[in-house]
Amino acid sequence: MRFQARNPDFETKVRSSFEAQPYMTLVGARMQHVAPGEVDISWTFRGDLTQQNGFMHGGVTASIADSASGFAALTLFAAGSEVLTTEYKVNLLAPATGDAFVARGRVIKPGRMLTVCRSDVFGVDGGNETFILTGLFTMMQVAM
Amino acid sequence: MRFQARNPDFETKVRSSFEAQPYMTLVGARMQHVAPGEVDISWTFRGDLTQQNGFMHGGVTASIADSASGFAALTLFAAGSEVLTTEYKVNLLAPATGDAFVARGRVIKPGRMLTVCRSDVFGVDGGNETFILTGLFTMMQVAM
Amino acid sequence: MRFQARNPDFETKVRSSFEAQPYMTLVGARMQHVAPGEVDISWTFRGDLTQQNGFMHGGVTASIADSASGFAALTLFAAGSEVLTTEYKVNLLAPATGDAFVARGRVIKPGRMLTVCRSDVFGVDGGNETFILTGLFTMMQVAM
Amino acid sequence: MRFQARNPDFETKVRSSFEAQPYMTLVGARMQHVAPGEVDISWTFRGDLTQQNGFMHGGVTASIADSASGFAALTLFAAGSEVLTTEYKVNLLAPATGDAFVARGRVIKPGRMLTVCRSDVFGVDGGNETFILTGLFTMMQVAM
Repeated sequence: MRFQARNPDFETKVRSSFEAQPYMTLVGARMQHVAPGEVDISWTFRGDLTQQNGFMHGGVTASIADSASGFAALTLFAAGSEVLTTEYKVNLLAPATGDAFVARGRVIKPGRMLTVCRSDVFGVDGGNETFILTGLFTMMQVAM
Repeated sequence: MRFQARNPDFETKVRSSFEAQPYMTLVGARMQHVAPGEVDISWTFRGDLTQQNGFMHGGVTASIADSASGFAALTLFAAGSEVLTTEYKVNLLAPATGDAFVARGRVIKPGRMLTVCRSDVFGVDGGNETFILTGLFTMMQVAM
Repeated sequence: MRFQARNPDFETKVRSSFEAQPYMTLVGARMQHVAPGEVDISWTFRGDLTQQNGFMHGGVTASIADSASGFAALTLFAAGSEVLTTEYKVNLLAPATGDAFVARGRVIKPGRMLTVCRSDVFGVDGGNETFILTGLFTMMQVAM
Repeated sequence: MRFQARNPDFETKVRSSFEAQPYMTLVGARMQHVAPGEVDISWTFRGDLTQQNGFMHGGVTASIADSASGFAALTLFAAGSEVLTTEYKVNLLAPATGDAFVARGRVIKPGRMLTVCRSDVFGVDGGNETFILTGLFTMMQVAM
């Protein structure tokens, strides 16, 4: 689905908001693709992000999926507004293995107050992608 | 609701599995209360866990809620089995402010394969608790 | 948790709104308990509400749980406003058997726009209750 | 995504299981498209399926979405097994208006025990489709 951004500077706004998130820095997340209604965030496997079995902690994966959806929503918001997550649901589809990961956040339904998004996360190992998480996220537009 | 643990060493198992989670160490989480079907995990506000507005990142809060539910489920599992999160849903009820936080994971319905849990998270500021997140989690018992 | 209703006629409003729901009539649902932030809805087993194995269809159970949460939210709304469900998540905890069922909707967190509720559904057989569904629901307050 | 059905008679099995669901008959649902990992179910607007504002009750829409995902999962199961919904999450994207509706259930990730599906529901008015619901569903394979 194709959306129009109301804010011509949406990419600058989204990238600088991302840079201002200390937690994204902590986990080594990098914003990649940014387009109206679309944001991809990637990160690299690191031992300190794992659970007791050596897989990426599902909560880390989900929190980056949450960020990808939140910033995807933000691309469509008015210049003077911010984004807050109100709720989300994730299904963990496979153990999170891979050298690297990418979370693809996409707006499903934009709204004045609430914007519904989906994020799909893939583990990347060489050229192979493994589908490890899908989730639905409800984002709220709030005036700054 | 009161449950019986099948594994008499459930507390040792749960605490050592928690200690073996690098991600819980990264975010400074501490396991507190452990009882059959119940685990509380607390953590302290830290600037590197926040989102762009200075609140605790919802994904951090949710991932600790996920751990609290997962370890609550693990208290009821057989000695030789592990826990995997299959899915969860969280509602973020209020901005995550506070000096400290506690996630209370409770088993709602134990099962041979799937165990359903709830986690409630509170921000703690002096003597005041603010209810910041509630979630439902489905945990799977897997043989090690 | 105890809430105050802003609308002194909340019970009349909620009961007449319930009576105006054709679908609740179709499935034979009856509104029982109504209090600020609380609504219970009961219904009786009927063969035409079942799935292929003779159990109550999970979608029927979930839709009555949705109504219980929606009307629980409505008890706290201003006189001139209505309720819309924006999203929900249910866990089906046990096969829905029983002569009768009750869905207990409770407000967890009221809000100006969004109110988060929980519904728990029980099958009732003589004096025994079986916990068959738990769910989280986000309700929106809309001006009529 | 393309899947292979293990059961060569999957379509007969799925259609006869659907016919055996009294609740689907009650709401006038009709099974349309059936393919490996894919099931579409349609239904027509009827006044007795509405909520207090004259829109299709969200619980009806969600329960047909649940059935579409459940039968989509069933297309991939072994001949001697049945499907049970363990949990689901829906986002109601727009008021459910339209002369007719279609729920498109698709398998996202098949599994030996748990199969994750998505259903999207559209209102159909003449040639126009309105996206009214998206949801994620976890289905369990159980031996009959």
